[in-house]
Amino acid sequence: MRNVSEDTLTQTFLDYMSDDTDGRVRYLLTELATRLHGFIRDTGLTHDEWRKALELLFKAGEISDAERNEFVLFSDVLGVSSLVDIINSTPDGTPSSVLGPFHVLGAPDVKVGADLKGENEGDLVVVGGRVLDTDGNPIEGAELEIWQTADNGLYSGQDESQPEYNLRAHMVSDADGRYLFSTVRPAPYTVPDDGPVGELLAATGRHPWRPSHLHFIATAKGFRSLVTEVFPSDDPYLDEDAVFGVREQLIMEYQERNDASDLPDDLEIKDKIEGTFYVVDFDFVLSKEA
Amino acid sequence: MRNVSEDTLTQTFLDYMSDDTDGRVRYLLTELATRLHGFIRDTGLTHDEWRKALELLFKAGEISDAERNEFVLFSDVLGVSSLVDIINSTPDGTPSSVLGPFHVLGAPDVKVGADLKGENEGDLVVVGGRVLDTDGNPIEGAELEIWQTADNGLYSGQDESQPEYNLRAHMVSDADGRYLFSTVRPAPYTVPDDGPVGELLAATGRHPWRPSHLHFIATAKGFRSLVTEVFPSDDPYLDEDAVFGVREQLIMEYQERNDASDLPDDLEIKDKIEGTFYVVDFDFVLSKEA
Repeated sequence: MRNVSEDTLTQTFLDYMSDDTDGRVRYLLTELATRLHGFIRDTGLTHDEWRKALELLFKAGEISDAERNEFVLFSDVLGVSSLVDIINSTPDGTPSSVLGPFHVLGAPDVKVGADLKGENEGDLVVVGGRVLDTDGNPIEGAELEIWQTADNGLYSGQDESQPEYNLRAHMVSDADGRYLFSTVRPAPYTVPDDGPVGELLAATGRHPWRPSHLHFIATAKGFRSLVTEVFPSDDPYLDEDAVFGVREQLIMEYQERNDASDLPDDLEIKDKIEGTFYVVDFDFVLSKEA
Repeated sequence: MRNVSEDTLTQTFLDYMSDDTDGRVRYLLTELATRLHGFIRDTGLTHDEWRKALELLFKAGEISDAERNEFVLFSDVLGVSSLVDIINSTPDGTPSSVLGPFHVLGAPDVKVGADLKGENEGDLVVVGGRVLDTDGNPIEGAELEIWQTADNGLYSGQDESQPEYNLRAHMVSDADGRYLFSTVRPAPYTVPDDGPVGELLAATGRHPWRPSHLHFIATAKGFRSLVTEVFPSDDPYLDEDAVFGVREQLIMEYQERNDASDLPDDLEIKDKIEGTFYVVDFDFVLSKEA
């Protein structure tokens, strides 16, 4: 096209794609280019605004490394990550929610009933429930990956003072589909706001806080993998999660208790519990693989 | 919002913006988020596709540095840079076209009639014309920045074998608004395709070639700055510029000549020209500042 104009540019882009382009790639790029071009035309984007957007992306590249991915963070605070989670959830299974950047591989294998709290400061919480299929049948041998912040709002890996794999575990559900562990109550925290994402938040008067949560990945043979989070019902940031991760079905009451005697017997620290603690009941419902 | 869903997510994003957010910022982010969310919903974007997109951005960050900006290149090959140029051009002035990544500051001042070819290999081209306002009046003292590739398709700065500022110049139009210089014919070249932009091009069967061109920035007091390019009418890539920069008004005939005697007398090398050379006539029309 030797006369690319406002009217012909999008079609020129589409015509450039060769006939043997993968159908899904062609469809996604067609939709992307059409909408991106429409955004520029309709808003009358100026050169300065275009440069500013590119500068934010360049800065995101500069600040990203193996431990920090500012592009994922942009996706998170723009609601993109959550929307991808939502549209890829099944209506009859547990809703998925953001993976976040703090998952690591290699967490230690622990048995049902294990204690993750150890020497960690903070409120004791006993978390348990079952992994079920959408008909309510227990799934034996489902694998759970569990990770969460310490009481200071930091994950091991972020925080030199925590042992490697602190508050991280890998557990396999028992014959009744049960999982169970004791841990410390996670804390609200801020997403990193010292980079271009922080600039975006500041420009729109937004705070970087997330409500506290427990992270889980639940997998089982024949079922769709589930990445999700569970939130306490009394968290102050429940209505204003910076990354849009909260779903009503993922909010759980932290039930205050003073008597450990009716806790399951396979809870490792059952006999050592003194004073107030909290109980969280949460079942994971996995959908069959398509 | 404690129950972010497919239906409520976009509004939740909009509600997060504080009341004192700059009006233009709010408008742009509203449009951006609405369209981005619409893209995800309508295409049913999968987690794998979302991860692939983020991976391309992460790789773009890794490959970018002070000399290479892969985000600008993404903008270029998606037609975004050109569309921003087009919608910010004035209908009665010379169309603008992509700045590209090869402009550098500090090019040497040269007089009208200067020779840029020097020892460069390739066809001799004499480029000249006038800088005019939209009523056709000459603009005296307009500043032109000129840069182009050598015969090998590389710019000085990219190519160790070229002297600093080779084929780069800064010229001021004379009392008649005239500019004039002799140079070498620029060559077609490929945009860098060894990074994620190259992946995108390969996935859609696109080549990375740009038609050869002369780059100009024309500025004058009281007028809008013009960033543009001028293309030879016989270039093989005129209809398929990888970055959508070609406009009909920017295509110029490279007129073949064998007689230098009727060239302007202030052309520095006029008396030394032997054999075949080419003449390009191009006038810049600048619009008044708004």
